[in-house]
Amino acid sequence: MELPGVATPKARQASLREHNLALVARSVFGSPEPLSRAAVALATGLTRATVGSLVDQLVAGRVVAELAPAPGQVGRPAVPLVPASRTVVGLGLEVNVDYVGVRALDLSGATVAERIEGAPGAAPADFSGSDPVRVLARLGDLARDVVAEVEADGMQVAGTRLALPGLVDARAGFLQVAPNLGWESLAPVPLLGLLPASVEIANEANLAGLAQLPFGQFASSGHDGTTFVHVSGDVGIGAAIVLDGELYLGRHGWAGEIGHVVVDPAGPRCRCGATGCLEQLAGKDAILRGLGLEASVAARPDGAASGDLTPVLEALAGGGEPGERARAVVGRAGKALGTALSTLVNLLDLDTVFLGGVYATLAEDLRPQLEAELRTRVLASPWERIVVRPAPVSGYAALMGGARAVLRDLVQAPSDFLETLERL
Amino acid sequence: MELPGVATPKARQASLREHNLALVARSVFGSPEPLSRAAVALATGLTRATVGSLVDQLVAGRVVAELAPAPGQVGRPAVPLVPASRTVVGLGLEVNVDYVGVRALDLSGATVAERIEGAPGAAPADFSGSDPVRVLARLGDLARDVVAEVEADGMQVAGTRLALPGLVDARAGFLQVAPNLGWESLAPVPLLGLLPASVEIANEANLAGLAQLPFGQFASSGHDGTTFVHVSGDVGIGAAIVLDGELYLGRHGWAGEIGHVVVDPAGPRCRCGATGCLEQLAGKDAILRGLGLEASVAARPDGAASGDLTPVLEALAGGGEPGERARAVVGRAGKALGTALSTLVNLLDLDTVFLGGVYATLAEDLRPQLEAELRTRVLASPWERIVVRPAPVSGYAALMGGARAVLRDLVQAPSDFLETLERL
Repeated sequence: MELPGVATPKARQASLREHNLALVARSVFGSPEPLSRAAVALATGLTRATVGSLVDQLVAGRVVAELAPAPGQVGRPAVPLVPASRTVVGLGLEVNVDYVGVRALDLSGATVAERIEGAPGAAPADFSGSDPVRVLARLGDLARDVVAEVEADGMQVAGTRLALPGLVDARAGFLQVAPNLGWESLAPVPLLGLLPASVEIANEANLAGLAQLPFGQFASSGHDGTTFVHVSGDVGIGAAIVLDGELYLGRHGWAGEIGHVVVDPAGPRCRCGATGCLEQLAGKDAILRGLGLEASVAARPDGAASGDLTPVLEALAGGGEPGERARAVVGRAGKALGTALSTLVNLLDLDTVFLGGVYATLAEDLRPQLEAELRTRVLASPWERIVVRPAPVSGYAALMGGARAVLRDLVQAPSDFLETLERL
Repeated sequence: MELPGVATPKARQASLREHNLALVARSVFGSPEPLSRAAVALATGLTRATVGSLVDQLVAGRVVAELAPAPGQVGRPAVPLVPASRTVVGLGLEVNVDYVGVRALDLSGATVAERIEGAPGAAPADFSGSDPVRVLARLGDLARDVVAEVEADGMQVAGTRLALPGLVDARAGFLQVAPNLGWESLAPVPLLGLLPASVEIANEANLAGLAQLPFGQFASSGHDGTTFVHVSGDVGIGAAIVLDGELYLGRHGWAGEIGHVVVDPAGPRCRCGATGCLEQLAGKDAILRGLGLEASVAARPDGAASGDLTPVLEALAGGGEPGERARAVVGRAGKALGTALSTLVNLLDLDTVFLGGVYATLAEDLRPQLEAELRTRVLASPWERIVVRPAPVSGYAALMGGARAVLRDLVQAPSDFLETLERL
């Protein structure tokens, strides 16, 4: 086990404590069952005394909670340890083409507060070509609402992650481009206004992919063999590539831009400037357009949000010409998605595909043509079964993934969080 | 540093010796300068006595050689240690569509013997639709020629790697399919006949990619930041994806099948059964066909091998209509290659592309349209420079990579090799 390079005995001791604190936190969060202090000692190889002191710190910081001891045992009953509920939260924020939202998740994985504008059934929203200053100010207001709500309940915000549908430089806090919003070259965080904990930005498809890992798994340090691609279908289409339990980010964090994979160079022009990108053939707007529904809210007489798939689902369920037409349109989208996924599988040799976003809802209608393309185009298809299934988490997965990313950072390095408490 | 799980003190001691032997070998092979025993002790953190004993074992096994001590130093002069020359070799074998070949590489990285049939300028060969029994028997004969030659010079074969242009199950020694050979579902190794050291099989594009890493780097254990894609152009097109110094293999070792990435679904049918695969638009045969040259040797009156790019290069260098036509044909191949590489870069966020095989020779004529596609289609192209350049090793790179893979295994686990010596 490698430790960060250290210089003085004092620094070494501090670093060792940080390291052991993380070990203890990971073993509590990664266990499917509540663990006793003795079980944590066994799992980590640390002495009972060390574990006792570290667990006490995590309990004092409200990261870990103690359940009532199991009765009826011989000797002093063991106190079961679990991730704390409703004490510390991670905040996920998102701007997408047809909604903005905020979700607060506690350390047990429960959603404790949420605000979404432009959700299906709620007020319509269309942020394509929008003004980032206004949209981000509004999102900041929603976030402050959520913060006020959780703080009123005695909870504390550990950090915030903002999901954006585009290329993001996370370190510099800079958005290069979000084609479907029409946003380019801006630093979004200051536009949110003041929030109680640090805000980092990330690509929405990557965060949506993280949300597909089992919740307890964020405590692990990867290398557990979990390998899949998660495709988020919305107006834009993004993918998260998870290899052996770790999100694959690429050189700059820009991996997974499956929406701009070429499916048919003779196809329509994309907002990115190229032609025949997947997004233009299988994105939500492409499906709505195929059904004669205007994709843009502003142009629709009834003012329904483009996020609303209801007319598509109704047509798919119905018979007659409208039903057939809807099935043909969704089938064509499935074929285009299958072409792009064949390319991805030929390049990366993955065998699990999660369909997320609107694709989770449409999975059964996309599947026949999608799987036919995989069978035809994946060179290895006669020798492996590629599993295509709806994503475990499909509703607002980037909000979920963003909040989880905050909590994962906390569990992987709890001493950073405990230090901020000491400074309060 | 993790050690394999061990049970008894004796097993633990053996395992520790194996581990330290590998540490010492890697430090000698990974150093750009010859190292003394004292420098190896410093680099590995082992005692001088331990290093002395381990180096003696590597010298006795002819893995490491001692140079003459540098004169004029105070005290006992240090003996410089280097990878041994002309003592132990790795053997690379390859079947491709227009050649079969064998190369023996010694531990210093030098080619010490080679046989290639169907090389440019040599006797023509066309193995599409060939009989694997005959082709592999012939390759076995070539390999035995090379073995006889190196053994006559007092060298010893450490192992053999057979490169095949298709999907390979390395563990089972089984070839699923090699579309351009027309081979399917066979175990190729027994068909080679007897060879002195174990034979493993691998995908040729993967081995060609390994050959692009600097020779000394095979001593390292990855994580050195070296990230690139190497595209091998031949009749088929394969890619090797190297991430942070390690070849990315995927779930079954089938990653990198860029030849079957969709470039234009309306394009010609591919041998894999799909349409519009890159191979059909930018493979060597596609270029030859575009110039009115028959790709298949059998059908050509002059009997020249399809491997021979001479007519293409002559036309490219010339003026008039033939020159213009050749430039247009190669330009179209460059555009198709650029489309497929844009897809790869959008998915993987890489910024270095090596052009190998015939693409190394054609690089300057492919480049304008290839780079134009990257600029149009890579979403991140305004914010990053994607470097496209001829591969450092382009001639028979899979032979080179296969031989190197054998030597890398030896350096990473020298005790296995030394034990086989003891058993002789």
